[in-house]
Amino acid sequence: MQQDWISRFSDNIRDYDGYAIGKLFKLLGDPATISLAGGLPSPDTFLKNELQRASQKRLQEDAAAIMQYTDISGEMDLIEAVIQFLQEDHISISTENIVITSSGQQGLDLTGRLFSNPGDAVILDRPTFAGALVAFQMQRPVFGGVDIQEDGSDIDGFEKKIAELIGQNIPVKFIYVVPDFQNPTGISMSLPKREALLDLSYEYDIPIVEDSPYRSLRYHGANLPAIFELDQHRSGDHVIGVYTFSKLFCPGMRVGFNIGPPAVIAKMDNIKQGNTLNSPKYNQDMCTAFLQEMDWKTHMASCRAYYREKLAVFLDTMQEYFPKEIGVSWTKPEGGLFLWATVPPQLDTLALFHEAIKFKVAFVPGEVFYGENPAKNHMRINFSYPSKEQLAIAVKRLSDCLRIHLQT
Amino acid sequence: MQQDWISRFSDNIRDYDGYAIGKLFKLLGDPATISLAGGLPSPDTFLKNELQRASQKRLQEDAAAIMQYTDISGEMDLIEAVIQFLQEDHISISTENIVITSSGQQGLDLTGRLFSNPGDAVILDRPTFAGALVAFQMQRPVFGGVDIQEDGSDIDGFEKKIAELIGQNIPVKFIYVVPDFQNPTGISMSLPKREALLDLSYEYDIPIVEDSPYRSLRYHGANLPAIFELDQHRSGDHVIGVYTFSKLFCPGMRVGFNIGPPAVIAKMDNIKQGNTLNSPKYNQDMCTAFLQEMDWKTHMASCRAYYREKLAVFLDTMQEYFPKEIGVSWTKPEGGLFLWATVPPQLDTLALFHEAIKFKVAFVPGEVFYGENPAKNHMRINFSYPSKEQLAIAVKRLSDCLRIHLQT
Repeated sequence: MQQDWISRFSDNIRDYDGYAIGKLFKLLGDPATISLAGGLPSPDTFLKNELQRASQKRLQEDAAAIMQYTDISGEMDLIEAVIQFLQEDHISISTENIVITSSGQQGLDLTGRLFSNPGDAVILDRPTFAGALVAFQMQRPVFGGVDIQEDGSDIDGFEKKIAELIGQNIPVKFIYVVPDFQNPTGISMSLPKREALLDLSYEYDIPIVEDSPYRSLRYHGANLPAIFELDQHRSGDHVIGVYTFSKLFCPGMRVGFNIGPPAVIAKMDNIKQGNTLNSPKYNQDMCTAFLQEMDWKTHMASCRAYYREKLAVFLDTMQEYFPKEIGVSWTKPEGGLFLWATVPPQLDTLALFHEAIKFKVAFVPGEVFYGENPAKNHMRINFSYPSKEQLAIAVKRLSDCLRIHLQT
Repeated sequence: MQQDWISRFSDNIRDYDGYAIGKLFKLLGDPATISLAGGLPSPDTFLKNELQRASQKRLQEDAAAIMQYTDISGEMDLIEAVIQFLQEDHISISTENIVITSSGQQGLDLTGRLFSNPGDAVILDRPTFAGALVAFQMQRPVFGGVDIQEDGSDIDGFEKKIAELIGQNIPVKFIYVVPDFQNPTGISMSLPKREALLDLSYEYDIPIVEDSPYRSLRYHGANLPAIFELDQHRSGDHVIGVYTFSKLFCPGMRVGFNIGPPAVIAKMDNIKQGNTLNSPKYNQDMCTAFLQEMDWKTHMASCRAYYREKLAVFLDTMQEYFPKEIGVSWTKPEGGLFLWATVPPQLDTLALFHEAIKFKVAFVPGEVFYGENPAKNHMRINFSYPSKEQLAIAVKRLSDCLRIHLQT
């Protein structure tokens, strides 16, 4: 039977490869290599003692409940704490608008699974978050990708793409965006574009999926309203929000939440019943403790200060060393964990990745961030995880590697 | 947009309702009601102090790693502990044969999603585990159900059903069974039938999915080999095993594992990359501690002793009070958490459920355990959760309710 498994797999999964980035990470075994490839928050920002205290307290008070099955839609304590958390961001929802997830990744999978048939279209940026592509790909949709601009998604381009797809009788199920410090580019969508995207959503009656993992990590400039908030000033039923605690509290708890219209949330809850049952109560309780007991506002302010410094070191060193004179350019993000570098079109960054490893530095080749027709001359660069000293060294190593391969 | 969500949902999910049992449980708010409906392990069996100790230790030693992203296929410590655990059950696997899951439910979803296209067939018992039906239904398969017998699945019936489906050009993707103390009937599959099922699997070249949540909970009789073990004496590539820590350690951690041929496990790992990323390390570490530090053999022996007594009280009280003289019969399981009662065909147990609530007792109407054409005259009865005193009272209440409704 072993030889023959592939023919037995479902049409959706047979050619599905999962997370391409993960495969690259397996090549990063050498401890001397400084990785700018990951998307990991720095452990320096983790509230380790606070977690220990919250853990001990809950396990003393409530171990039996923590060890038992619990509500599939989520712990009411956490739901209420999240509702309050969102109020700080001018988003007003009630319990029927939220489902707790076992990570933002699950939130994305619930979304893809709920809406997409094979061959349906999803509108998104080129490039966009690889994890979203990987989640949606399990439903084999068509990706209607449009090159992102300096001030965020190309809304006119989205409209053209939608019209084109409708003209081909392809149902467009939703528009996926990461408006704040997008992964991988670090680009944020301007306020006029957020409104224009909503106009488009209303005009074509297509929901927006707003993925907001980095929203609390703004280091410069003024906060822009979430598209979810802007929609609440209209009919308030065109946006689904995907959130995670990974960049607030920590990734290890694997807790997130989706918000949206009750009909959507109820159906996501149904899918969750079939695909995991409840998210673990312990992990939810730790996130509740984060929001209720750990002074998250001060914590996020100190995370921002911490990453702001790293970003500054990074951008300064790039300005000094990176070979801009031979056609290398990069984004200057106001928040998040990533920036996006563009090299001359003759250079394939997947090939460059393997060369860079020899220089003991790593990044993610941009091609993994495209739903289709990947561009080959970009790099995603992470600045959150290595130390400031490592960041400066890494930039120099990558600059050396680039110079050598751009001269040949 | 709100009115119109249903038309936007995917074909697989549009009519998907999730877990019917959950909806019934919402009717059980009255604390005076004794519920024989749930499938909860008793909190009396939880190793609460041990969990607290293990938790404190790991959070002191390893908080940063616990708070970070971790390997998607699972923690190597846990994988090795599980490999050893399975050796005790005469199952011999290596790391390429196992993927850690975020619960048995995820294990089932990975299975359905990996194999089933809409319209493909899954062979299973009538009745069978509702959670499996709910997981598989998201792929809209055809359920080829065959009435279960006293000694387990009707293997000849399976063969007829397979031949029939093949004759209709319907691909049969796998055979799903719970051979040990099946949920909902408590029935176990005899050794000759386990071998006959393997024969069938080899003859028709159809894999078996063996779901083993209750395998360690045998109160009477001799252990029977897992079908996975029996297959290892043959070619060893026809069985996929679905396991959970829910009935070993506790459900609240949401950790399980699937085992099987490397090609299958690698693909399940791919799906996990897209649908959740890593299972939380903390929860995996607690399960590792369970297997390595908590003397699980002694623990399971004391769980067996505990549930054996409850089952005895339950069966004794049923023997005394249950109205067998008017056509009510029930299974006498040798393990697990459930037994299955059959009432005369004129009685609809969903209607009876609503009557039973008035008698302050609850069970699960059998109809939720059928993939298609549900039988209406069965009840699933749980004996693990209420105390012995409550169990005896519950049986009397249910007997009274049955007598009244069978006389009319």
